[in-house]
Amino acid sequence: VITTGLAPVRLAADGQSVRIIDQRRLPEELVYRDLASADEVIDAIRTLAVRGAPAIGIAGAAGLAVAIRTFAHAHPDAVGAQVMETLSSIGARIAGARPTAVNLGWAVDRCLAAARGAAESASTIAAAVAAEARRILDEDLEMGAAIATHALAILPDHFCILTHCNTGSLATGGAGTALAPVYAAHAVGRSVTVFATETRPLLQGSRLTAWELHNAGIPVTVIPDGAAASLLRSGRVDAVLVGADRIAANGDVANKVGTYAIAIAARRHGVPFHVLAPRSTIDASTARGHMIEIELRARDELAQLGGRTLLADGIGVWNPAFDVTPASLVSAIITDGGVHRPPYDFGGSPR
Amino acid sequence: VITTGLAPVRLAADGQSVRIIDQRRLPEELVYRDLASADEVIDAIRTLAVRGAPAIGIAGAAGLAVAIRTFAHAHPDAVGAQVMETLSSIGARIAGARPTAVNLGWAVDRCLAAARGAAESASTIAAAVAAEARRILDEDLEMGAAIATHALAILPDHFCILTHCNTGSLATGGAGTALAPVYAAHAVGRSVTVFATETRPLLQGSRLTAWELHNAGIPVTVIPDGAAASLLRSGRVDAVLVGADRIAANGDVANKVGTYAIAIAARRHGVPFHVLAPRSTIDASTARGHMIEIELRARDELAQLGGRTLLADGIGVWNPAFDVTPASLVSAIITDGGVHRPPYDFGGSPR
Repeated sequence: VITTGLAPVRLAADGQSVRIIDQRRLPEELVYRDLASADEVIDAIRTLAVRGAPAIGIAGAAGLAVAIRTFAHAHPDAVGAQVMETLSSIGARIAGARPTAVNLGWAVDRCLAAARGAAESASTIAAAVAAEARRILDEDLEMGAAIATHALAILPDHFCILTHCNTGSLATGGAGTALAPVYAAHAVGRSVTVFATETRPLLQGSRLTAWELHNAGIPVTVIPDGAAASLLRSGRVDAVLVGADRIAANGDVANKVGTYAIAIAARRHGVPFHVLAPRSTIDASTARGHMIEIELRARDELAQLGGRTLLADGIGVWNPAFDVTPASLVSAIITDGGVHRPPYDFGGSPR
Repeated sequence: VITTGLAPVRLAADGQSVRIIDQRRLPEELVYRDLASADEVIDAIRTLAVRGAPAIGIAGAAGLAVAIRTFAHAHPDAVGAQVMETLSSIGARIAGARPTAVNLGWAVDRCLAAARGAAESASTIAAAVAAEARRILDEDLEMGAAIATHALAILPDHFCILTHCNTGSLATGGAGTALAPVYAAHAVGRSVTVFATETRPLLQGSRLTAWELHNAGIPVTVIPDGAAASLLRSGRVDAVLVGADRIAANGDVANKVGTYAIAIAARRHGVPFHVLAPRSTIDASTARGHMIEIELRARDELAQLGGRTLLADGIGVWNPAFDVTPASLVSAIITDGGVHRPPYDFGGSPR
């Protein structure tokens, strides 16, 4: 299992809180916060204190475990149906915290299914949910390692990649998705270098990706988002590696806004464009990318900057958090299940 | 002549200083500064207090006029050759303030040529340079109006454009280049709306373009640079209009970093991609775009943000100010001379 020593999101041993790294405070401060209710978890997800599709799935499951444990303690004699109704209602609120990443709803659904299989008492249901939340974390760590193994099989021995947003430890339970092969290659002494877009507006590239790679001793160079096309033309990049927030059944990929432009430029310059994500990111119920709901984020992410007001009232803002890259531009989708090549068919075996 | 009421750069009536709008202070404050020496003008150009290819050409010429006037006053009896040598040496320093925009060297060269035609005394040479600097400004204003006329002939009656960086009043003597047809259309009551990228790292889009369009009553919406490709896919944009810092003889265009990615996406989605610039931006001595020197700017433009340090020492930065869009992606180059279509041949008449 890949580790950078970071534990971005964990259900506390006593099950009473979710401990997260507050990613809004990075890179200045590595601050942990303990979230003791569903509302605190929802707020942390909405404000991007915890972010990254896999990480918010883990956080959502852990938050549900904390909330139902609190309920079970307050209502030790509640009957199963009442507990399940409460669980479902809290789960729906957590799943609705952000719309685009499929992992959040998927993790909540897994906890609900685990609860249904549990005995009738509130405490056994709470225990089942907590166990499932821990399983989701453990599986995430294993999936990162599997993604790395599959990706390294198709990357050169030594490689230089371009990545966008943050898909490292901080975006997951700790192993990363698109950065998992970077960490794995570095760990065995391969030469690996990374170009990271700064990723406006919230700067996950410069604040998070550069920070965690630099801490791990991996050479990283930050570029403005607008420089990616020139970089791809320069021939210095062996592959683009990005994550995903939701992958449609046909292989269309929703990921951080700006991904689509990079994919177009990568195709123009013959640079492989790979999407790395756990299988849970594939949404079989969404046939094509245009059906994916794209979250629109707050005006202030563009209108305010470090205390400055850049935009007067009356100036419009269009601030989609994600975009959709069509499957035709994706060279491979690399999951813990293997390397998928177009045309994508996730029902079948990976090729 | 188009006017927004802004006078971004002017040679003072007494010829003793260059008055600029300090664009670093926008949008918070509209502050004018009087630059009384070549060194002050060079510093203003380097630090982007005055920016935009046409505007720095005007500023460079005006700065040269101020400097040679000061010299002439200090050395009233200097002979022509000595004055010309001084003029040439100051001109070379001004022309070297920023490497990519051709207009700076072009404006300095015009002033030197005007001086050569002047009489032998220091004061007549100084007067000739000042007159040429004023002519460059006047022509710039006329060129903006001509660019607007030619552009409106190929745009729909009512239109929505996407633009990048700032190509409005602030980038020129006042009429704009890529925004000139926007102002001209608005002035005659056509419906015109603008999407403006924020343009990292220095935010010329949100700080300057949105500010000046909003002040003029033109609806403007700011997007993160990474959202341009999605916007172009959406079908909402009739054309991309951008400026240029240098146009090679074959039609390759150096412009603000990020332009190339927008051009690739525009082609993919069938949106016309037009470059609007005065003829002085065409550099006949540069055959192709890859020969254009691309300025690399300071690390701190990415490493620092509103007082925050985003990048630790040891994290690399690649911060090119410009990129090159190949002529093959440019639908039309619109100058004051007319609408040029590919294959580009600026020796011939515009088609």
